[in-house]
Amino acid sequence: MNVKPLQVPLRTIMTPGPVEVDPRVLQAMSTPILGQFDPAFTDIMNEVMEMLRQLFQTENQWAFPIDGTSRSGNEALLCSIIEPGDKVLVPVFGRFGHLLVEICERYGAEVHTMECPWGEVFNQQDIINKVIEIQPKIVAIVHGETSTGRMQPLNLLGPACRKQDVLLIVDAVASIGGANVAVDEWCLDGVIGGTQKCLSVPAGMAPITYNERVEKVILQRKKVEYGIATAEELEKGSYTNRIRSNYFDLAMLQDYWSPRRLNHHTEATSMIYALREGLRLVLEEGLYERFGRHSYHENALVKGLEAMGLTIYGDATHKLPTVTCIEIPTGIDGDSVRKMLLEQFGIEIASSFGPLHGKILRIGTMGFSCRKENILAVLSALEAVLIRHGFEPNRGAGLQAALDFYEAPVCIPVQEG
Amino acid sequence: MNVKPLQVPLRTIMTPGPVEVDPRVLQAMSTPILGQFDPAFTDIMNEVMEMLRQLFQTENQWAFPIDGTSRSGNEALLCSIIEPGDKVLVPVFGRFGHLLVEICERYGAEVHTMECPWGEVFNQQDIINKVIEIQPKIVAIVHGETSTGRMQPLNLLGPACRKQDVLLIVDAVASIGGANVAVDEWCLDGVIGGTQKCLSVPAGMAPITYNERVEKVILQRKKVEYGIATAEELEKGSYTNRIRSNYFDLAMLQDYWSPRRLNHHTEATSMIYALREGLRLVLEEGLYERFGRHSYHENALVKGLEAMGLTIYGDATHKLPTVTCIEIPTGIDGDSVRKMLLEQFGIEIASSFGPLHGKILRIGTMGFSCRKENILAVLSALEAVLIRHGFEPNRGAGLQAALDFYEAPVCIPVQEG
Repeated sequence: MNVKPLQVPLRTIMTPGPVEVDPRVLQAMSTPILGQFDPAFTDIMNEVMEMLRQLFQTENQWAFPIDGTSRSGNEALLCSIIEPGDKVLVPVFGRFGHLLVEICERYGAEVHTMECPWGEVFNQQDIINKVIEIQPKIVAIVHGETSTGRMQPLNLLGPACRKQDVLLIVDAVASIGGANVAVDEWCLDGVIGGTQKCLSVPAGMAPITYNERVEKVILQRKKVEYGIATAEELEKGSYTNRIRSNYFDLAMLQDYWSPRRLNHHTEATSMIYALREGLRLVLEEGLYERFGRHSYHENALVKGLEAMGLTIYGDATHKLPTVTCIEIPTGIDGDSVRKMLLEQFGIEIASSFGPLHGKILRIGTMGFSCRKENILAVLSALEAVLIRHGFEPNRGAGLQAALDFYEAPVCIPVQEG
Repeated sequence: MNVKPLQVPLRTIMTPGPVEVDPRVLQAMSTPILGQFDPAFTDIMNEVMEMLRQLFQTENQWAFPIDGTSRSGNEALLCSIIEPGDKVLVPVFGRFGHLLVEICERYGAEVHTMECPWGEVFNQQDIINKVIEIQPKIVAIVHGETSTGRMQPLNLLGPACRKQDVLLIVDAVASIGGANVAVDEWCLDGVIGGTQKCLSVPAGMAPITYNERVEKVILQRKKVEYGIATAEELEKGSYTNRIRSNYFDLAMLQDYWSPRRLNHHTEATSMIYALREGLRLVLEEGLYERFGRHSYHENALVKGLEAMGLTIYGDATHKLPTVTCIEIPTGIDGDSVRKMLLEQFGIEIASSFGPLHGKILRIGTMGFSCRKENILAVLSALEAVLIRHGFEPNRGAGLQAALDFYEAPVCIPVQEG
C-alpha cells in the first residue's frame, strides 16, 4: 500500500459540527510538543482551566477537558456520580436526550424520562413538578439539542433543583461558546461543552466543569489506582461504590489537573494547544459579542431561507441560534440535496436522526464557520440545488434578503438566558 | 486574563513518551478539517485502518483508533469483553500491569494476578501453567512495560491461550512501532498500541486491533443506542449483559468504522490526520527497518551510559529496546538531575513510579526522538549534570563510546520476537 501525503479538499462546512477550524487554531496544533509534566506544559494546562472557567461563566475550581470527543464528557460526569440504583430524571426532546438516558442506564441508574414533541422544549415548571414527584438524585438534560435545533431554558430549573438538593447535569455541547450558558447564575452543577462546534476547535476534547456539590459525591468514591497511590490511600478500606470507569474517573482526573499532577493518562498535547488557542480567540472576541455574532448570522440565514420560500422547522421561540432546521419540501430527496451541495459546491450541511431523517435539513452557524461569506454561499448554492431537484424557490430572493439584512445598520441582538 | 498566542520552548524529549513529533506529522495536523461523513474523510479513515493492520501485522478486519489516550484503548477492549464475574488473569511485572488489574476490577471481573520482581519478566511457561490452573476467560498482559523497561515474550503464551480457548489481550502501547509486535503470528486476540511513543504522533488516540474471537463476544452484547437504532435492533429483547460504557462500546464503534458509518461520536479529525501521517512514515521507513533503528540507537545509548560508569537497571535479556533504565548512583537526587537537564539543556528524561521512584531514571529511544543527535545530546548533558550533582563519571567516555559505535560499520540488529 503506497499512501500519499495528506491532501484534502477545502470545504465550506455549515453542519452543526464539526465546523471549520480557525486557521490560528490549526497553526497552534503544528507547534512542537512538550512533555506532560514539563512546567511549560502544566502552565498551559492552568491557562486552559482559567479560560474554561470564563467560558462557562463560573467560579468553579474544576474546569478541564476530558480527552475524548464530546460524549466522553457526558459519560465522565455521569459515571462519576451515578451509583447503581440512583434515580436520574432525563427530560428528552431530541436524540441527545436519548444519549443521556443510554449512558445513565448503562451505569445502572433507575432512569425516569419525560418527553415532549421533537421541535419543542419543555416548560420548566413541568420538569420541576416531575423533580418534586420523583425526587431523583440527578437531572440530566440537554441545553442545545442539535438534532431538533431547540434550546431548553434552564434558568428556573437550576434554582429549583438546587432547592430540592438534586444535581443538575447539562449537555451544552452545541451551545457553549455560541449562546449563553451561565453555569453559576443558572445553578448548573455539572456542564459538558463541545470543541468542534461553536469553539471551532477540532473534535477530540470535551471541556467540562462541575461544582463542589458534584465534587463531594465524587470524592466519596475516590480510589487512586495501585502503583501510584500513596500508602495512606491504599489503606482506605474497600470501595464498594467506586467509579466504574478508570478512564473517566473524575476523582483521579481532578488530581491530574491539580498541583498534585497525579499521573493518570498522557495529556493530548496538540489538542490542548488547539483548545488553548480556541479559548483565547473566544475571549478575545468577548463572550457576549460572540453570542451576538452567532445570532446575527443566524438571522441573516433565516431571512434568506424564508425569502427563498422555505419553512423553518420547529418552535421559533426556543430555536437554538446555532442550528437552523429547514423542512424538506414535499417530494424532495434531502440526502440528494446534501450530496449535490457537497459535490458541486464543496458545501456541507446536515440531515438529522431517527424520526427527523428525511424530514429536515440542518444548517449550522457555529464558530469560525459562522460568517457572512458562508451564509451567502450556502443560500446561493441551496437555491441552485433545490431548483435542480424540482423545487421552485423565489429565485434570487434568498440572497437579496440576506444582503438587505447585512446592509442594514448593525443591531446585534443580545442573547437571553 | 490576557492570554498571549501560544509560544513553547523547544525541547529534546527523551522520555518514554510523549516523544517529539515528526515535523511532517505536525504539519498534517494543521490541515483544514473535513466533516466526519464527507467521503474524502471516510476514505482517510479507511486508509488509517489499512495502515494499522500493517502496523499490527494482522489480517484482522478490525483495526482502528479509540478517541482517547492510550489507556482508553485498554479500557475499550477490556470493558467490551468483561462481564461481571468473568475470570481474568493478569501477570504483573510493573505499573501498567496494575493498571490492567484496576480496569478489570472496575468492570466487575474476578481478577487473578501473578507477580514477578520488577525489572524481570515472566517465564512464559509459568503463565501458561497458571492459565491451565485458573481457566480464565481472559489473560490481560503488558508487552512493553515502560515503568521497568522490560519486554515480555509472548510467542508461546499466545498459542497456549488459543489452545485453552482463552482470550489474550495485550497492552503494546510502549512497543508498537518500535519493537516487533506480531499480532497474528503470536496469536494475540486483542492488542492496544500507543501513538505518543514509537509512532511519534501526539497523545490522544489509542489504536487497537482485535480478531473474530473477540468480536464474537462483543456482538453478543451489542445494543445500538436509541435514537439511531433500527426498529429491528430495538426489538432485540433485553440486554442484561450489555457493555457498560457507551463511549467504549466496540460493538457500536466498529459500526462507525464500517461502511454502515453508524453515528457514534464525531471522529477527532486532526488527530486522524496525525495518525495517518505517522503511520505513513512508519510504513515508508519499513517496520523491520524501524525496529532496527530503535535497537541501533538504544545500543549506542547503553554503550555510552555504561562507559560513563552508570549501571543499567534490570534483566538485560528482556530489556525493552525503547526504554533504558539507569540505576541512580547512591546519594544522587534523581529528580534534581532531571530538573537540571530540563532547565539547563532543555532535555527531558523520566523518573519512574511507585517502588522505583528515586531508584531509576528512564531514557526513551522512541520514534522521531530516537536519533543520533538526541543520543549524543543526552549523554553529554547527563555527564555534566551528574558531575554537578557530585557523581564522578569517566569524563568524556560516554560520548567517545557512542561515537565509536556510530562510526563503526553499521550492523543493525534484527529484532527477535
